[in-house]
Amino acid sequence: MTATPKRVRLTPDARREQLLDLGVRMLATRTLDELSVDALAEEAGISRGLLFHYFKNKQDFHRAVVQRAAEDLLARTKPDMSQDPTSRLQLSLASYVDYVEANHQAYISLVRGAAGSDEALLEIFDRTRAAMTARITDNLEVFGAQDTPTVRLMARGWSALAEEAVLGWAADPQLSKKELLRVLTATLPAVLTAG
Amino acid sequence: MTATPKRVRLTPDARREQLLDLGVRMLATRTLDELSVDALAEEAGISRGLLFHYFKNKQDFHRAVVQRAAEDLLARTKPDMSQDPTSRLQLSLASYVDYVEANHQAYISLVRGAAGSDEALLEIFDRTRAAMTARITDNLEVFGAQDTPTVRLMARGWSALAEEAVLGWAADPQLSKKELLRVLTATLPAVLTAG
Repeated sequence: MTATPKRVRLTPDARREQLLDLGVRMLATRTLDELSVDALAEEAGISRGLLFHYFKNKQDFHRAVVQRAAEDLLARTKPDMSQDPTSRLQLSLASYVDYVEANHQAYISLVRGAAGSDEALLEIFDRTRAAMTARITDNLEVFGAQDTPTVRLMARGWSALAEEAVLGWAADPQLSKKELLRVLTATLPAVLTAG
Repeated sequence: MTATPKRVRLTPDARREQLLDLGVRMLATRTLDELSVDALAEEAGISRGLLFHYFKNKQDFHRAVVQRAAEDLLARTKPDMSQDPTSRLQLSLASYVDYVEANHQAYISLVRGAAGSDEALLEIFDRTRAAMTARITDNLEVFGAQDTPTVRLMARGWSALAEEAVLGWAADPQLSKKELLRVLTATLPAVLTAG
């Protein structure tokens, strides 16, 4: 499966992956509610019936797309450990802002649609935020902070601050991206050492 | 309607208010999904049919309860303008923490359940956060901050930080309430002046 020439029949797993990628791309510009099974089947050029061969039902399909969006986000913002800690944070934040900018609706679906009544979506959201926060708490010494319950709670709080600020900025950019990155980079050590 | 002796027939408006108060109290310990019309009717000792005299449908009822929860939150955390600015912030934050502690599930419904697919709930959430944030941006000089787009975005970010920190603390308190209030009070000027 390393090479997949056109028109070759895909394995079920590969086809499922392809449908998930398509789902995430479609989610960039529509809400989770608007991402219907019909819309995906049409975009993929397959029948609705065949789609249900890969996903049990609409809820299963939505969870899989949101899970994929979360994995994409974590992969794209993965800290580059070959960089020094400050550059690492700046580069990771820049990737985060770029991701939210390019996938605005998908990101809203991840953080907000991930709420509501679907416990599985809420879990994906919580795991994603925990993974983002761990990148901070695994490197507290870089920010001049001790590992205490207070500092850990503030690391989680700062993740929420960054999310809210980047979403607010993407919806109505009243400052440059450079200024946004500057202030976010400055607030993290400020929050971790304010306690 | 200043005095409402027992067994006196309430006006429809007064009865509706009473049902909303009951709904918010019930929401303290259950999710919005679990707050069924049947459960409220049973708790209020009225018929399901009569309940639909006050609320068009379940969605209308949920929106009204969440709106009432938001009003309660804003009223209880209203800054006391007779206090100096620092005490004002500390008292308001303490009321906020007390509210979230006492109404944990209602607050989660307000901030998370308020997401999902119901635009009306999302609007209640956005208005509530905007009102909380305005208490900061109306008093920026107190925190040594200028009124700039960056500072306004950070004020909004700090509201998200406080919300996440207080919810995390209420779910699993690893620090004292006093320590939580101390660190939140310290992070606000730190965030507003980090830019």
